[in-house]
Amino acid sequence: MTEETPPKKGCPPGFWRVKLLISYDGTDYNGWQRQDNAPSVQGTLEATLSKFYKQPITIMGASRTDTGVHAHGQVAHFDCPRNPEQGDLRFALNNALPKSIVIRQAWIAPDDFHAIASSVKKTYRYQILNRRVPSALRHRYTYWQRFILDPEFLNEASHFLVGKQDFKSFQTSGTVVRTTVREIYSAHWEKKNNDIVEFTITGNGFLKQMVRNIVGTLVEMNQEGESPTRIRDIIEATDRRKAGPTAPPQGLYLSKVYYPDDLDNECRKL
Amino acid sequence: MTEETPPKKGCPPGFWRVKLLISYDGTDYNGWQRQDNAPSVQGTLEATLSKFYKQPITIMGASRTDTGVHAHGQVAHFDCPRNPEQGDLRFALNNALPKSIVIRQAWIAPDDFHAIASSVKKTYRYQILNRRVPSALRHRYTYWQRFILDPEFLNEASHFLVGKQDFKSFQTSGTVVRTTVREIYSAHWEKKNNDIVEFTITGNGFLKQMVRNIVGTLVEMNQEGESPTRIRDIIEATDRRKAGPTAPPQGLYLSKVYYPDDLDNECRKL
Repeated sequence: MTEETPPKKGCPPGFWRVKLLISYDGTDYNGWQRQDNAPSVQGTLEATLSKFYKQPITIMGASRTDTGVHAHGQVAHFDCPRNPEQGDLRFALNNALPKSIVIRQAWIAPDDFHAIASSVKKTYRYQILNRRVPSALRHRYTYWQRFILDPEFLNEASHFLVGKQDFKSFQTSGTVVRTTVREIYSAHWEKKNNDIVEFTITGNGFLKQMVRNIVGTLVEMNQEGESPTRIRDIIEATDRRKAGPTAPPQGLYLSKVYYPDDLDNECRKL
Repeated sequence: MTEETPPKKGCPPGFWRVKLLISYDGTDYNGWQRQDNAPSVQGTLEATLSKFYKQPITIMGASRTDTGVHAHGQVAHFDCPRNPEQGDLRFALNNALPKSIVIRQAWIAPDDFHAIASSVKKTYRYQILNRRVPSALRHRYTYWQRFILDPEFLNEASHFLVGKQDFKSFQTSGTVVRTTVREIYSAHWEKKNNDIVEFTITGNGFLKQMVRNIVGTLVEMNQEGESPTRIRDIIEATDRRKAGPTAPPQGLYLSKVYYPDDLDNECRKL
């Protein structure tokens, strides 16, 4: 879920730039990004599209979600070698894709639309199943935590995440990034359906495993009875060792990727 | 999900009869029943219990759910060679079991409690995801149906299922049963969360794939614009060929198994 902004690249002549809204169950994939020896969401989509159009197709996703992370609203683009208005593209792709990947919507986008470079903000959700007994039917989609969390405490602490700050303390190392400064627009917790505690965070970008590191840290702070202001000290330290553990991937969902309104308006639904 | 009533067998001296309330995700199992060459829920529970008690343990489940069918409320019993009141049995078993099987509750039951023979009725639920686009995140837990169903029609037709009748038309052959007469106490459909159409059926027993055959038949009748009374003709025919297709397993949940109140009252929660 890290992203470095690549240069914008327009759609070549004779191709149509297509924008896709994609949901997937991350359980069976080694994350979004194409890999040589492991199944990935990008690789599966590219294989399906390449077979469909009988030529190699590359697809670019807005977020490189990690192994086991899900998406309700991943956005991707590819350059389509045939007029995508012929036939029901969404229906045809969903028929060809495994059931764990679904094209929710497809558009013809402007030639310079770019899933990563054009995006302005993203929302992630994290679902904790918060009760004494685990769930057999939700173990792939939630992080089970026996300790009963206090949403009020979590909200107080999350207040300190909002703003333009250096989030180095919440970055898992491994990716080279120009800057670890990101702007968080909102971060809040909500109790849902009696046993779910859900975190929703929106920002202009996220560092590697940043959401899971934030969730793991806040849960630990709550368990250990710390003051909500401790999160401010952790941010200020710009030191990963000051933060808590990484929460597991199966609770995390890429919820929405936002683009400027004028760009959304230029997209034509297929 | 068929069951023939075996003779009641009491708990041998020096053992404690334990009743378990179990939920499981049927995706990865070839059904409840123990098999030699395929993973089953019963086999997995028996392997875990046998390792835990360092001796062979046999477990008896109220319903033999098919491959891919889930359970919220399966009930089973086994004879425990140690006093189950020592330690937190539920917690210890859940720690040892795969995440797809969860012990929701455990009790010390009367010596003559029998998961199958003592049961008086059962409730099954069937979930249809009823919308134009499939769901990547619910494909293991719902049957996706594009045709928009009419719950009013389905309820009218389901009305004819209620009562003591010969349900041979809804039995998939393969199991020898003494009688194909069963009593259905209630059968109704409900629209939930906008895109789910859910069937709930309660009866004193169910024939092999009976719920899935009923669901497949009702969906087909709705699609083909038939009269709700047609279900009466299908029942009367006592001929499987008169009914519709078998709905897929992943939408089906064993929801609840009922026992007489006095037997429930004699069980002591662990």
